[in-house]
Amino acid sequence: MSEQGRTPAPGNNLDPWYSSYAARAAGLAASEVRALFAVASRPEVVSLAGGMPYVSALPDDLIRSALDRVMTEQGPTALQYGSGQGVPALREQILDVMALEGINASASDVIVTTGSQHALELFSKLFLDPGDVVISEGPSYVTAMVIFKSYQAEVAHVPMDDDGLQPEALRERIANLKAQGKRIKFLYTIPTFHNPAGVTLAAQRRAEILEIAKENGILVLEDNPYGLLYFDKQPPNALRSLDEDGVVYLGTFSKTLAPGFRVGWALAPHAIREKLILANEAAILCPSSFSQLVISEYLTQADWKGQIDTFRGVYKERKEAMISSLKEYLPGCTWTNPTGGFYVWLTLPEELDSKAMLPRAVKELVAYTPGTAFYGDGGGRQNMRISFCYPTPEQIRVGIRRLANVVNGELDLLHTFSGSGRLPDSPSSGRYNAPPPDLS
Amino acid sequence: MSEQGRTPAPGNNLDPWYSSYAARAAGLAASEVRALFAVASRPEVVSLAGGMPYVSALPDDLIRSALDRVMTEQGPTALQYGSGQGVPALREQILDVMALEGINASASDVIVTTGSQHALELFSKLFLDPGDVVISEGPSYVTAMVIFKSYQAEVAHVPMDDDGLQPEALRERIANLKAQGKRIKFLYTIPTFHNPAGVTLAAQRRAEILEIAKENGILVLEDNPYGLLYFDKQPPNALRSLDEDGVVYLGTFSKTLAPGFRVGWALAPHAIREKLILANEAAILCPSSFSQLVISEYLTQADWKGQIDTFRGVYKERKEAMISSLKEYLPGCTWTNPTGGFYVWLTLPEELDSKAMLPRAVKELVAYTPGTAFYGDGGGRQNMRISFCYPTPEQIRVGIRRLANVVNGELDLLHTFSGSGRLPDSPSSGRYNAPPPDLS
Repeated sequence: MSEQGRTPAPGNNLDPWYSSYAARAAGLAASEVRALFAVASRPEVVSLAGGMPYVSALPDDLIRSALDRVMTEQGPTALQYGSGQGVPALREQILDVMALEGINASASDVIVTTGSQHALELFSKLFLDPGDVVISEGPSYVTAMVIFKSYQAEVAHVPMDDDGLQPEALRERIANLKAQGKRIKFLYTIPTFHNPAGVTLAAQRRAEILEIAKENGILVLEDNPYGLLYFDKQPPNALRSLDEDGVVYLGTFSKTLAPGFRVGWALAPHAIREKLILANEAAILCPSSFSQLVISEYLTQADWKGQIDTFRGVYKERKEAMISSLKEYLPGCTWTNPTGGFYVWLTLPEELDSKAMLPRAVKELVAYTPGTAFYGDGGGRQNMRISFCYPTPEQIRVGIRRLANVVNGELDLLHTFSGSGRLPDSPSSGRYNAPPPDLS
Repeated sequence: MSEQGRTPAPGNNLDPWYSSYAARAAGLAASEVRALFAVASRPEVVSLAGGMPYVSALPDDLIRSALDRVMTEQGPTALQYGSGQGVPALREQILDVMALEGINASASDVIVTTGSQHALELFSKLFLDPGDVVISEGPSYVTAMVIFKSYQAEVAHVPMDDDGLQPEALRERIANLKAQGKRIKFLYTIPTFHNPAGVTLAAQRRAEILEIAKENGILVLEDNPYGLLYFDKQPPNALRSLDEDGVVYLGTFSKTLAPGFRVGWALAPHAIREKLILANEAAILCPSSFSQLVISEYLTQADWKGQIDTFRGVYKERKEAMISSLKEYLPGCTWTNPTGGFYVWLTLPEELDSKAMLPRAVKELVAYTPGTAFYGDGGGRQNMRISFCYPTPEQIRVGIRRLANVVNGELDLLHTFSGSGRLPDSPSSGRYNAPPPDLS
């Protein structure tokens, strides 16, 4: 059927359905750096941009053994539709995982989701009306902000320091937003091994943050993908361990096992959990029975805590390689020094702009994520997130050395053409433009 | 932390966050018959209510062999994050599946989703503003209507006959909605082996329906989970084979392979596909690499067309058992006689109400889905959907015999207390209340 004769909802040449989209679709835009990241995925590029766990540290036979058991003992169940809330046995096992961070809960309050990302999506669909405000750390997780924006909410950032989110700044921000008549729906926070900042909310601040939320009637959405991946000392217990009525907690197997199964979860107060289940059923009918049963068998058979120790050792070595390389090659920059997780947040000399510099970095065969990706307000130009989770220690050293060449080259250029003190750049779009998911 | 001292977004005793939900959350309500279906899942009940495929007809070794190949050849890839659009090799293979229904497309226009259910969700999120209208057949697929409602859209039903959606009725409905100033966003249709009606859109009507949509600038969302499961004669080609600019097509491996992997797909015009990918990335980052690679290996190694023939034989035998049992035990009812798919749509004698009758049916150890579940306007009281996909032919005969006892018992009761001609019933809520997913 040709386009002739179609009386369109008025479109344009590129998209005849342009005017049919919902208002919220305007919030979903491709990242300006997306094409660049496609280039950056070439093998000769050292990518410090991604958030991919190092799954090769997971012994093959542990997964094969779980697959075999699932097919032998639960084949038809694994291949069939299941409950919208998730497999009961797995929900019980998730309690054991959360207990490691001080959480005491009931399996009936756990809902299994397609990665914790989908829990974020379902929660946002349930809570966000257009114009609502989500408070989050600044910087914050890119793809969470993409979701909030896709439901036409605004994100209000609150700064962190080395001890995480600053309580006084949170108080002020809330007061300020309330004075403007804004409707604050929830505080989205990554208290432990923050993505991208690499810092952890100090123990004494945890109760204080919860108290501020409680006083102001604000729900807390605690996103905790990295909490078990500490390098030496265990971090403070999860926020949820201190407040079961005011916190919705998100967890995942993507970092402690493997993201390819897409299994995460939410732990929520009773009434919210009920609505999350209905939203999950509407969205996907049920999470993958196969994926859930494989993970359940893995948790039953394998030394999963020992495997997490293995991952901790891998990431600790890589983090140390990154920090020592930064000291050696980039003494003019500053950075956070994470005690767990995947990420370092780097601050460039103040004349430099990480986004403007990225094409040159990719040409020099190193990639990172510009800091602006993690803010909705144009912040982060002087910052970048560099990840140590996927490249080997040797690759990390090579990558940081290349990055230093780029930084020094930019500084030379700037000093040669000095005067403006700032390289030309493009204005911020105010959108949260997610890089492709394997990079976020 | 206790509830004391919490200054709530004003809630209620059952849910302190009651007033925090988005307006759209009101559309997500638990089904009134949900508790009853929990009872109906007891093994002694013959359930004609569900839409579960008979996965036991899939030989175990075909899946084991695919699992083994994935682990041997692509282990780290299967365990890792992947592309938000889906695995390229699988998208190529999906073209071969769609070619069986006359569709000619490019793999770059295919996006892999978490079951075709998630494609429905993402598409709805992209297109539906509050107050928009979706046109669909009446009755229609429950969980699609739950999604439309969750984005605050209205569903306008158009009747079917034995040849499917009625073109003249569609024309009138569109004209009528336009006269009311309504914004019609798309036509949601299941043209082949309709769920729940069991009818198929006749070949000559397909071009006509597309022409009506085109004239009115209405996008068509073609949902086709059952098209390859015909009993004898192949049905007419998919709508998408006739119009590549005006149709978004949804397919799934849930019925031709197994739903436990949660892998379906959308085929969409370029610009829409781009937005669907961004919406998919925001919602789940990427579909399960593991599930996709297992299915891709299955399609590479196994005689998947032969396996579909096996499923067709299984379902044909069950459909015949159902129709012959209906003729034998329920001569006072009428029903559709599907030429493929999973469902028969039964019409009771006009005094009876299928929803009011359900508790009695469950007591008699047979379950079905009341017709009202498939309408948003209180329609379908005299109807029910009975599924032949999961129970064996013998169980189907037992189930229909039990159903006949219930129907005859209700008729006896009615004639004993005649006068009103109608049993008491509860008013329709106007909501699309989905039964649990394994039943929908």
